[in-house]
Amino acid sequence: MEKSQGLLIVLSGPSGAGKGTLCQELLRQMPSLRYSVSLSTRSPRPGEVEGIHYYFGTRNEFESMIARDELLEWAEFCDNYYGTPRFAVEQALQEGLDVILEIEIQGALQIKKRFPQGVFTFIVPPSLDVLSERIHKRGTETEEVIQKRLAKAIQELEYVSEYDYVVVNDEVPVAVDKLKSILVAEKCRVKRKPFVFKGESV
Amino acid sequence: MEKSQGLLIVLSGPSGAGKGTLCQELLRQMPSLRYSVSLSTRSPRPGEVEGIHYYFGTRNEFESMIARDELLEWAEFCDNYYGTPRFAVEQALQEGLDVILEIEIQGALQIKKRFPQGVFTFIVPPSLDVLSERIHKRGTETEEVIQKRLAKAIQELEYVSEYDYVVVNDEVPVAVDKLKSILVAEKCRVKRKPFVFKGESV
Repeated sequence: MEKSQGLLIVLSGPSGAGKGTLCQELLRQMPSLRYSVSLSTRSPRPGEVEGIHYYFGTRNEFESMIARDELLEWAEFCDNYYGTPRFAVEQALQEGLDVILEIEIQGALQIKKRFPQGVFTFIVPPSLDVLSERIHKRGTETEEVIQKRLAKAIQELEYVSEYDYVVVNDEVPVAVDKLKSILVAEKCRVKRKPFVFKGESV
Repeated sequence: MEKSQGLLIVLSGPSGAGKGTLCQELLRQMPSLRYSVSLSTRSPRPGEVEGIHYYFGTRNEFESMIARDELLEWAEFCDNYYGTPRFAVEQALQEGLDVILEIEIQGALQIKKRFPQGVFTFIVPPSLDVLSERIHKRGTETEEVIQKRLAKAIQELEYVSEYDYVVVNDEVPVAVDKLKSILVAEKCRVKRKPFVFKGESV
């Protein structure tokens, strides 16, 4: 068999679903998995390392990359651009490495347009009660802000139909095992195989 | 979430790929998995138990079932009919049980037409050398018969493109783990989910 390309696995879902926790745990358990580092135009915060936490660039550089379609997705928040450079992802995949990307829903849908061969996985909380609890626990927001977040998260659940897989994040180890199974299964999909069988190896 | 239907997983592939071994091992490791019992018009051999090894029926009964489209696939060998009854498979799936079926390629393709929601998995040997070795080991056939089998098996590899997944059966435990991952992943597929999220459970 020819050397397979790596897989791009996109973890997405509403806020409070716990996609960040699952992403960290997967990276811990699978040392060969690469985390896709975002590009940002904001200033590095103390302790942030170029190429580890973010790639940092100027607005001009970022806008040139948009123009050249070199970003798998991008968005602007609070006067700063954030995006996913296509180059780093594609290079890792060509080396046969799997890449994981944790991202909110609009970003994931942009990636799906540019990179439909990705594995799009939607993470959901086990129930709305748990979702509410997780959003409450996060911090110091007022009840009004919390209610808005919750309403948005509920709306966002509708986007599940755009995804390939849905994983309920009830217990982290169970959800992580499901994500690992998804990776193993996707590597067995016939449509991903440059199938060669010439008397030596499949 | 509504109770999910079970999955029908179809193991197929050329003779010598080892699909029988993988099927037995999966059944051993997953006691909830149901083996699809075939219907035959041949006489029971000593020790064969109705409903365990085969369902046994008359030619008339079998032909009525063909006429009523009650078989997911069927074939005739040496004046006897063999087939897969649709009823038993569908009943188990509706109870939420997963069903496994080990079958040669033409039978699998018949099932795919009648039951496209099945999970069609093609088992291949790691190399043609290993395939040749396995076919030689089987028994007492002449070299000519063996060569014909091998040629047929090589031709049959072309059918991989009709399947969802391909699993290389090099080491049995590795191949079995891949099959288990495929089952787990397929249960997470959005297209299989009757997705409900009403404040209680996903």
